[in-house]
This record gives sequence, structure tokens and C-alpha cells, in this order.
Amino acid sequence: MKVLKIALLGFGTVGEGVYRTIQSHGVRLEEVLGKKVEVVAVLVRDKEKARNISKDLLLTTDFDEILNIPQLDIVMEAIVEKEPGFTYLKKAIQKGCHVITANKEMFAHHGKELLELAEQHYVSVGFEATVAGGVPIIQTLRQLLNVNRINKIQGILNGTSNFILSEMREKKQSFADALHLAQEKGYAENDPSNDVEGTDAFYKLVILSKIAFGQQLDWSDINVAGITKITSELVEEAEELGLRFKHIASVEQENGKLKGSVKPILVGRSHPFYHIEGVENAVNVEGDIVGSITLQGPGAGMFPTASAMLEDLGQLSKISKQYDSKSFSVKTNKETRRAAEYWLICNVKKKLLHPAIENVERLKNGTSIINADEKVVEKVREQYPGMEYFKIIGGYNEINRSGSTSLTATL
Amino acid sequence: MKVLKIALLGFGTVGEGVYRTIQSHGVRLEEVLGKKVEVVAVLVRDKEKARNISKDLLLTTDFDEILNIPQLDIVMEAIVEKEPGFTYLKKAIQKGCHVITANKEMFAHHGKELLELAEQHYVSVGFEATVAGGVPIIQTLRQLLNVNRINKIQGILNGTSNFILSEMREKKQSFADALHLAQEKGYAENDPSNDVEGTDAFYKLVILSKIAFGQQLDWSDINVAGITKITSELVEEAEELGLRFKHIASVEQENGKLKGSVKPILVGRSHPFYHIEGVENAVNVEGDIVGSITLQGPGAGMFPTASAMLEDLGQLSKISKQYDSKSFSVKTNKETRRAAEYWLICNVKKKLLHPAIENVERLKNGTSIINADEKVVEKVREQYPGMEYFKIIGGYNEINRSGSTSLTATL
Repeated sequence: MKVLKIALLGFGTVGEGVYRTIQSHGVRLEEVLGKKVEVVAVLVRDKEKARNISKDLLLTTDFDEILNIPQLDIVMEAIVEKEPGFTYLKKAIQKGCHVITANKEMFAHHGKELLELAEQHYVSVGFEATVAGGVPIIQTLRQLLNVNRINKIQGILNGTSNFILSEMREKKQSFADALHLAQEKGYAENDPSNDVEGTDAFYKLVILSKIAFGQQLDWSDINVAGITKITSELVEEAEELGLRFKHIASVEQENGKLKGSVKPILVGRSHPFYHIEGVENAVNVEGDIVGSITLQGPGAGMFPTASAMLEDLGQLSKISKQYDSKSFSVKTNKETRRAAEYWLICNVKKKLLHPAIENVERLKNGTSIINADEKVVEKVREQYPGMEYFKIIGGYNEINRSGSTSLTATL
Repeated sequence: MKVLKIALLGFGTVGEGVYRTIQSHGVRLEEVLGKKVEVVAVLVRDKEKARNISKDLLLTTDFDEILNIPQLDIVMEAIVEKEPGFTYLKKAIQKGCHVITANKEMFAHHGKELLELAEQHYVSVGFEATVAGGVPIIQTLRQLLNVNRINKIQGILNGTSNFILSEMREKKQSFADALHLAQEKGYAENDPSNDVEGTDAFYKLVILSKIAFGQQLDWSDINVAGITKITSELVEEAEELGLRFKHIASVEQENGKLKGSVKPILVGRSHPFYHIEGVENAVNVEGDIVGSITLQGPGAGMFPTASAMLEDLGQLSKISKQYDSKSFSVKTNKETRRAAEYWLICNVKKKLLHPAIENVERLKNGTSIINADEKVVEKVREQYPGMEYFKIIGGYNEINRSGSTSLTATL
């Protein structure tokens, strides 16, 4: 029986998850692949650290030792930051290995180069695990793209932020307390800035956007904001309006140009993200033929992410397609022409005066709801330093706030 | 440029959707497939009926004329009932054509035979459109199965039933009125029994179950019930409890044996199906590694279903695998051992007396909530003719019915 030889780069949460799953599901993988799967080497930073790992494999801190393994088939990378992951995977591809990565930061920056290099060397690059953990969004986008043009993608892509917002709402905690809990539970790092400032979600949006639209999304194209400005007072006020803060990354194509954002948005009950709580991730895709599809599931964690990496293993020969070569234009969908939108405006005590703004409702603490076009809101903001604004999606008008029963009845 | 020749069987809603999409998205399909796609023939029942269809293709009532088309590549079937679809597709496969079907009744009965025949003739069978319309659940299950064992599948698989239940709740309509509206909107047939009596959902469950567990699910294995017994009074009582009726098809494997059901269930707010309204479909899959994944989207309709059929076209060479040959055993998941469940019991005025039943709450109209094991409930029913019972999922205990704000706060 032929053996599929795997080297694992990194033995953190995800790396260990892959290792354990290959051990527990070896028979299943052998059924699917027709080959026995064996982890022959693991690259770590510190060889001396205690690990529950087989003595028979090569445990090394030196990537060259891994490259020198004869007939190595696959390199699976689960380390963080752009380097050294990118250099390692380039070398692995040049040596003729298939590669599978869970490293979103590296792949958002260097995905295109890796895929082109892989094409030259007739190997594949799997990256399902880079976005939304166990949720099979990469594969789903590929499937939809067989016929659909994608109009828009929206996602709750950072489980840590979603967990913090859920805790703040459900348990009326402060941002700091909720973040602290997320750190205790292992959902957030000691330095949580990548998560709570939107960078992590941005990387994932870059990857999704490239698959869906074939174009590179740049920092300069979009507004990236995290959840650090959301106070428990704001969360509570939103709650009273029947709205919830969700940190949403979205991208759409207008006249051939990508338009995206990564920021907290207020979501009403009719939106599929209203009910996404805790560390869950969700992605909504609008295809021009199929309509709106939503996927929801575990966005991170040892086993969901390991599952995504090993799913890639199961279809090695099919991957690498459709990622970088498509660059078609999306037809303008009539339905995307929409009326002016609703916004929650904070830190402005007086009524906003602008002919293109409808002041829908004044709330306490200098908060109000307005109805206006995004451009107008941006313009108005220049006149009001300190003003914050949040888009409301999912049917602000449909909310009936009068009482429990009728409220439920009109959801 | 090579042309991919397609014959379309049926020109109803789905057939016409496929035809129109190939016309509008020809360039896109050509990009993906590397070939021009052309519908060369359409099989209909009545040639004289007015249709907006090209004069250049073969419009026929005779399937043999289609079989005789030289170098026909693909037969796409969008007709109803087991026959004549099954016979047509068998002949097409024997002639060397790939086939793609949207016919769930036929495929639930004859899928295995078609796939085996296709393997002998080195062609593929696409059937993404047979379950949940545009929701790519077949492909997602395949992807998860690359490494996961599936523990359980639950789905809202009949859009008509879900639409009727939503209308009954939102607009306080009777079953008859909601059904009538569904018929007016084209969601239900003149004879709606396949939809409202659970047969349609059962067919789809059979197809999902075979992919996930590699085993045939029989009528005799499971209890199939529709929504015809759900009255507007029941819907309203559930609403007051913070629960919603959903028609759910589910299947899991226990000790190598499939256990399934197709019936209305009461769903609490924490369950992903609570918020699925109207003609939407949703499928929840529990994989042993990845955890719980939910997909939601349009379950039927001209273009979503056409999209699914054309997605199959885009990956013709990859399909047919993993459907009939897998027959692995699912390990017993510790977490599936659960406490006794909650049930809404109707038509029993008195308190249920049984040592293994906890009477949680008495409601009006002979309705009450109990906590008991399913076997006990089934047993008790024998003593109470006319008693109806509905399982409650999604956290009955977590419901706080005291008032709007705190209710929202504890969702």
C-alpha cells in the first residue's frame, strides 16, 4: 500500500488538531484517498517542549531537514504570520509537494504567488481552512461559480469579535470584561488586536473576494474597523431597538470595481446574521442565478479547522482552480439599487440638519436613527467631530417594539 | 471550439430555468467548461403549447429522437415521478451520455441503480438539484465526508410546508388558507399531498442519507408525517411559548442502523431552524470532527434549481463518487447520549400518569409540556387515543416568556 507522507509545519492548536485527526481517522482517510496517510515530520520552534507525539517521526526546528525527506508528498502549514510560512511553502512547492495551509495572513498576501507557482510545478494548494474554520465556504463558492456570478459576499468571519459582542449583549458585560473572558477561553490571543481591530476578518475577506471576483482587494479600497468602539451602552440601546451589533466583512463589485467594508453593523431580525452567536462564523453569498445562500458553523478551533485542512487533502487533485484566473465583470443587478439606508448615529445631541437626511427617531444619550444615503452620512460626519454611525441591515422598519407576543408575531 | 450538446427532458419551471440560464450565462459556462454549451433538443409532452424557445433545436415528444442525436453529451432531466424519467436516464447512460437530474422521487428510488450503471459506462450522474434546490448540500456533504463521519442530518427540506407554517404563524391563517395561498403563488401543486404529507421531504432525506451513511433508508424504518394536523390554534400556542412548528426531516445512525423521522417539530430560539421562514430550506449536518454546519437558501424555484443543475455540469468529472459505495460505521458519539426530551402534548385534558414522565407545564385546550424519553411518549400514546405529540428542540428551558426586553436579552 502506497503511503502518503505528510510534514506538518507548526504544532499549535490547529497543527495538533490535524495530527490527532489523522491518528483517529486514518482508516477513513485511507478509504477516501486509497492510500495510508502518515505524518512523517513536524516542524516546531522548541523541540524540548513536552508534547504527546510519536517518537517515530522527525521532530525538528530546521525546515531544511523536512525538505530533505525523500518522497515527501504534502506539506501542511499551520503557523501564523506571513513569514516564515510563505518561504517554506514556496520551497515545498518547488520541491514538488502539494501544500495545504490554514494561514490566512500569509495567504491573503501571497495566495496568488503560491497558486501560480503551484501551477508551474503541477501541484495543488489547499486553503479551505484559511476562511471560517470548518465552514466549507471556499468549496461552496467554487461550486456556485460554476454558473453564478457572485453579486455580494457578507460574513461574520471573526469568531472572537462575535463572541465578545454576544457576551456584551447577553450578559451585559463591558468590552474589556468580554475580551478578558475570550482570552480565558482561548478564543483571543494575549495581544487581541488582529481580532478586535478587524485585521483578521479583512484577511479572510481578501481571500473570499479573490475567489469570487478574481480581483485583489487592497487595504486602500476599504474601510477596516474593529469592535473596540462598541460600548455596553450602545449594545443595550441597540437591543432595545431589536437590533444587534455584528462585526461584518462584506464585498461587492460595482462597475468592475470592488467595494468592501469590515466594520460593526446593526442587524435586524430578518437578516440571517441576527442569530449568529458566540464563536460561530457565517457567510452569506448572493449569486445572480441561485439567489442568497448562507453557511453557518464553527469558525475556529482545533478540530473544525483540522477538518477543513483534511477535507482539502481529500480532494487534492481538484483544487487550485478558479482562484486567480477569473476576472469577469458582474452585471449590474437591478435589485442592488436600493433606497437610502438606515443608520444609528451616536454622539450627536442635536438633530442632524441636511436636506438628504430623514431623522427617523431620536433616542437617549445623543443617539438617533436616520435614513440617508451612505455618501450623505459620510459627508455629514465631517461637520460633527466625534460622531459615530452604524449601518442597520435586516429590516429596521419591520420591527415592532410594543410587546413580547406581537413582537414575536411580526419577526 | 468543441460544443457540449445537451438534451433537456421537460420544460416545466426547472427545465425552462435551465434553458434560460444557459442562454443568459453561456459565456460564463464556456469559461468554466472550456466548451460552448448548447441545448440541442427538448423533450415535452405537448409540442403545440406556446413556448419562448429557439426554432433551431429539436422539440419532440419522442425520447428515441433524442437518443438518436449524434454525439449527444449530456441529458438533463427535470420531469416528475419515477417514470418515464428513470427509463430515459438509463437509456441515456447506456448510450454514453452524462446525466443530471432534479427528479427527487425518481432518484430516491433508483439513484443507486443509475450510479452503478453510470460507473459501468464511465459517465457521471449529477443530482445536486434533487435536494434543497439551490443549497449546495450534496457537494458540502461530499466535502465533509473526505474526513468526517456524519453523526446526524436534519433538514427543512420542503419549502411549501415551511411557507404554510410561516404564513399560519405570521398572519394567523388557517392551514387551508395558507395552503391556498401557496397554490396561488405556485409553491404548491393542485394536489399538494406530496408536499404537505411529508413524502417530498422523505425522498430528499433518502438521498441525503445514502450519501452520508451509504445505506438505504426505507419507508418502514421511519415515521413520515406531514403538517396537515397542525392547526392555527396549535401554532398560536407554540408562539406563546416562544416555539415554532417546523417540518423537519432527520436521520442519524445508531449502532449501524439508521434512525430517521419526517414530521413537524417544535423548535426553540437557540436552534438554527427557528429563523428559517417562507420557502427557504435549511440543512444542518453534524460531523464528528467539524461539528455542526448549517446551510440555508432557496429550496426550490426556477433559477435556484437550474443553478444547482448547471453547477453539476461544471464539475461533471468529479461527481458520481462517494454515493453508493461507502458503508462505514459511525462511532457512537458520547455527546449523543442525551437526557429525556421535551414534548408538546395535545388532546389530553388530564395529567399524564407515568413514572417516567415529568409534567412540566399544563397549558390550555388539553395541551401540556412534558419531559420524557421518546419511547415512553410512544407507549403512553397507546393509552390516549387522539393524543398528538411534538418534540421540542432548541432549548425549551432557556425560554423566558416574561416580557419583551428581557426576552430578547436571554435569546
